[in-house]
Amino acid sequence: MPVYTPPIEDMQYLLHDVLNVSQSDIPGYDDMDRDLTAAILGEAGKIAAEVLAPLNPVGDRQGCTLENGVVRTPEGFKAAYDQMREGGWNALDCDPEYGGQGMPYLLGSAVGEMFVSANMAFNMYLGLTHGAVNALASHASDAQKATYLPNMIEGRWTGTMNLTEPQCGTDLGLIRTKAEPQDDGTYRITGQKIWISAGEHDLSENIIHLVLAKIPGGPEGTKGISLFIVPKFMVNDDGSLGARNAVSCGGLEEKMGIHGNATCVMNYDGATGFLVGEPHQGLKAMFTMMNEARLGVGIQGHAQGAVAYQNAAAFARDRLQGRAVTGTQNPDGPADPIIVHPDVRRNLMHQKSLVEGARAFVFWGAMLIDRAHRKGDAEADALISLLTPVIKGFLTDKGFETTVLAQQTLGGSGFTREWGLEQFVRDARITMIYEGTNGIQSLDLVGRKLAANGGKPIMGFFDMVKTFIRDNEDVEGLKEPFLDPLKAASKDLQAAAMYFMERAAKSPDDALAGSYDFMHLFGHVCLGLMWAKMARTSLAALEQGAADPDFHRNKLATGRYYMARHLPATGLHLARIRSGGDTVMELSAEAF
Amino acid sequence: MPVYTPPIEDMQYLLHDVLNVSQSDIPGYDDMDRDLTAAILGEAGKIAAEVLAPLNPVGDRQGCTLENGVVRTPEGFKAAYDQMREGGWNALDCDPEYGGQGMPYLLGSAVGEMFVSANMAFNMYLGLTHGAVNALASHASDAQKATYLPNMIEGRWTGTMNLTEPQCGTDLGLIRTKAEPQDDGTYRITGQKIWISAGEHDLSENIIHLVLAKIPGGPEGTKGISLFIVPKFMVNDDGSLGARNAVSCGGLEEKMGIHGNATCVMNYDGATGFLVGEPHQGLKAMFTMMNEARLGVGIQGHAQGAVAYQNAAAFARDRLQGRAVTGTQNPDGPADPIIVHPDVRRNLMHQKSLVEGARAFVFWGAMLIDRAHRKGDAEADALISLLTPVIKGFLTDKGFETTVLAQQTLGGSGFTREWGLEQFVRDARITMIYEGTNGIQSLDLVGRKLAANGGKPIMGFFDMVKTFIRDNEDVEGLKEPFLDPLKAASKDLQAAAMYFMERAAKSPDDALAGSYDFMHLFGHVCLGLMWAKMARTSLAALEQGAADPDFHRNKLATGRYYMARHLPATGLHLARIRSGGDTVMELSAEAF
Repeated sequence: MPVYTPPIEDMQYLLHDVLNVSQSDIPGYDDMDRDLTAAILGEAGKIAAEVLAPLNPVGDRQGCTLENGVVRTPEGFKAAYDQMREGGWNALDCDPEYGGQGMPYLLGSAVGEMFVSANMAFNMYLGLTHGAVNALASHASDAQKATYLPNMIEGRWTGTMNLTEPQCGTDLGLIRTKAEPQDDGTYRITGQKIWISAGEHDLSENIIHLVLAKIPGGPEGTKGISLFIVPKFMVNDDGSLGARNAVSCGGLEEKMGIHGNATCVMNYDGATGFLVGEPHQGLKAMFTMMNEARLGVGIQGHAQGAVAYQNAAAFARDRLQGRAVTGTQNPDGPADPIIVHPDVRRNLMHQKSLVEGARAFVFWGAMLIDRAHRKGDAEADALISLLTPVIKGFLTDKGFETTVLAQQTLGGSGFTREWGLEQFVRDARITMIYEGTNGIQSLDLVGRKLAANGGKPIMGFFDMVKTFIRDNEDVEGLKEPFLDPLKAASKDLQAAAMYFMERAAKSPDDALAGSYDFMHLFGHVCLGLMWAKMARTSLAALEQGAADPDFHRNKLATGRYYMARHLPATGLHLARIRSGGDTVMELSAEAF
Repeated sequence: MPVYTPPIEDMQYLLHDVLNVSQSDIPGYDDMDRDLTAAILGEAGKIAAEVLAPLNPVGDRQGCTLENGVVRTPEGFKAAYDQMREGGWNALDCDPEYGGQGMPYLLGSAVGEMFVSANMAFNMYLGLTHGAVNALASHASDAQKATYLPNMIEGRWTGTMNLTEPQCGTDLGLIRTKAEPQDDGTYRITGQKIWISAGEHDLSENIIHLVLAKIPGGPEGTKGISLFIVPKFMVNDDGSLGARNAVSCGGLEEKMGIHGNATCVMNYDGATGFLVGEPHQGLKAMFTMMNEARLGVGIQGHAQGAVAYQNAAAFARDRLQGRAVTGTQNPDGPADPIIVHPDVRRNLMHQKSLVEGARAFVFWGAMLIDRAHRKGDAEADALISLLTPVIKGFLTDKGFETTVLAQQTLGGSGFTREWGLEQFVRDARITMIYEGTNGIQSLDLVGRKLAANGGKPIMGFFDMVKTFIRDNEDVEGLKEPFLDPLKAASKDLQAAAMYFMERAAKSPDDALAGSYDFMHLFGHVCLGLMWAKMARTSLAALEQGAADPDFHRNKLATGRYYMARHLPATGLHLARIRSGGDTVMELSAEAF
């Protein structure tokens, strides 16, 4: 069975040494001193390792079952859910007005990584509720907030998002679910939604579905979509639960992974729904939820890579096979541990440098969100909006890649159920698909975010990189291994951005054929920047005689690996982008 | 459910237009005219599409079961096996002396691709028998051949290879299975083998296990390994089956994929074994089997990519979602098929150019084997020996990558069981692991094959590329899109080879830390060469007014994609190789 060790030392390093959170001017950050975050991360890590991780293979094997409309989650999920709820883990960063703990999103993200590493399928029940809470907090009426938020934040009720229908996933303009206005101000919701994560289950007393539907007579396409609250059980005026609403689970999807989470066909048969916000403004509200969900999915991809890497490293230290080419390392054993072999190490360093770089990227992104929301910083808001598709697309691709590499470290054992690596691969795979496939993320990036506000956010990003390089050019040990490759990679990114700007209008196919590579190019520059920042931090720490010099030396070595072996990928991505759209678009559809 | 369309047109193109088989001087090739290969490929394709493909999801869902020592294969496997056997498909390229059809290995490989695309788990029962047949044909005594080969070639008996034990996979020197000589000249085999594919099942009357074991008192390590025949049922002098031997299946492995194939724990409890060849020479014999198995696994990886791609392309033509950015393409429908979107096409072109390039590489490799074996051509033998780890390692990595890309084309549908793409991903995954992990392939390539015979084989490869480029520089339409990038990629490969040669002795860690990238660099150059050859062929065909100009134009367009978007990866691999071993080896084992 796989193990999980919460990466608390690395998280503390990021929070306090790299990001210096308690010195930040973001409201609420001044409370986050080392002791507080150590206590919270420690407690969360304990639950992750001791409660959630052991349930991960159980959830995978048992899956969820549907019988007479009732969905049962795997053994132990309900008890674990209750424990999470009682500990207040559902509501760490939610609004205190409705019972949340009001902690920064950054801390919620750190805790989230641990929960997801330990048990991704389980944590989705919480994650979807969190997204629904945010959508309601931003768009619902005060009365609706009062009715739903306290119970959802407390975890007594959970939430879902209902977008997809059999004929429409990405293209929401094709939605057919109908919402007919009733005399009492409610709507009658009729239609079928598919792939609804946590759509039905036995963990909570009520399920609050957020449903996209069309009010007859409204505008065509996406402009005619409205958002509705459709509770599983109606809520009485006194807050107690009333009659069962006409919404039911019509089937569970059989799928590659995340078996512990119920993926439901949801049938709305004239269910009672409550309009959220204005009619026909549903997409905007759903995007509040979606943007958070995309960051959350980026964290999922990273978190699966992180736990897979841990297990690969542990295996490589233990498994005895062959002798080191430079001389026996374990003379008392029948063979050396496989970690002595250069190719095994290459694989592990590939994983490690991705995982730690991704964690820094997630933390930095989460801090931008706090800066945007808590301080109302428009620049931070624009930057995280630009980075959201990169965090989702790049970190899930790389997270999945990491699980595959980690599985490879185990050889044949990686393919067996017993060791659990193959589950990480299967679970991670969905992160590249849901909440907008990574192809869609790349379109969002190139087609929308890049040109947003006249290109100001990306220019701001380039300035930030340039300033960082300029300000640190004299730091000993930083320039050659870190700043020079970062500069080169950033130049590749600028060249690519320029290429798109020149072609966006006159030849959109050229730009869009390169969108996926651009997303990866951007992701690499972000991780390069993270590694350069971590290197500066660790060089300073060593200079100041840090108590744990080995930690910082290992950081620097891992960073040098990233810069030397991952970052040069920017050149390949740029070459592909510059090859344009012709070779991509030439064939007729029948020729495939 | 996924579909399978045998790629007969593409195979005929490779056999007759590109490789010109019937004009070859290889014995037996003169029979292979267009009509004969069309007939054979047509029949095999029919069985693949109609018999094997429908059983693929059945095998995945049901898996194999073990009860009271009896392993049952999934429903329909036995009937399909009998049909394959009756059609003589087990023995297409086996020795006619023992009942085989004596066809070239090349044709067997082409047919094999189709069978594996249709049902990889099923075809493994045949594939392992084929490998065992070859090992016996090369190393067994005449009496042993007479006893075992006819029944194995006929498919009444199947074969296995038994190497792995719990404490040893890659490092066979650690084998503990004992073979004690008996007075009657047989050996008493005792020990446990794990991960034995097709170790026990209900398809054949007998199972002939080839087992590596150590004769007590022999040399230490790999030099003390011998190879034994251990039949499930003893064979009487008259060829009839006798008593059950003391070998049994102790368990089935639960694994990520290939559920239709039984992966067995095999217990040898004083079983009767027959020595093959000389004592302590077992590894050599096993490598005969292994080398063929490695090529076969390369084909498996490619074949899973090929079928996954087909299904992705079909989905992308059908699924309506969104509108083309350059203007509506399907005005009568609610949306355009997703194949109009540049990023969907990029993904499909990525897959298609890999699949067709890989197929050409496999065919070329198979022809080298025929040249080596049928004509006794030492140069061809040395070249295929060099290329074997590349075919295994690169084509399985790329085959798996293709299945993942194809799954992505389907979005959420790709993650569901129903569409079958996720099975291709899970099945393909093992190809990167078994018969020597791809890391081991890269060590074989850099540590052994590269320097073999003073580097003559790789020099021969470079000469071949150079000659091809020089001979075709004046072909219109070839130079800029094909020859120039091939030349650049080949230069990268030479630079990498030079780097290793300089460092092999004094700094082996530098060389080995780059071995995996070298394997990929080499693979890309091979596929680049294949595409350049296909381009030359198709340009000539167009010039000569070929009957199907669209086929050739599509080939050229697909090739241009490969050269523009895949091949530049050689620069990245070279940069990684040149970064050396320091960043790879620096950390202590505890720092991971």
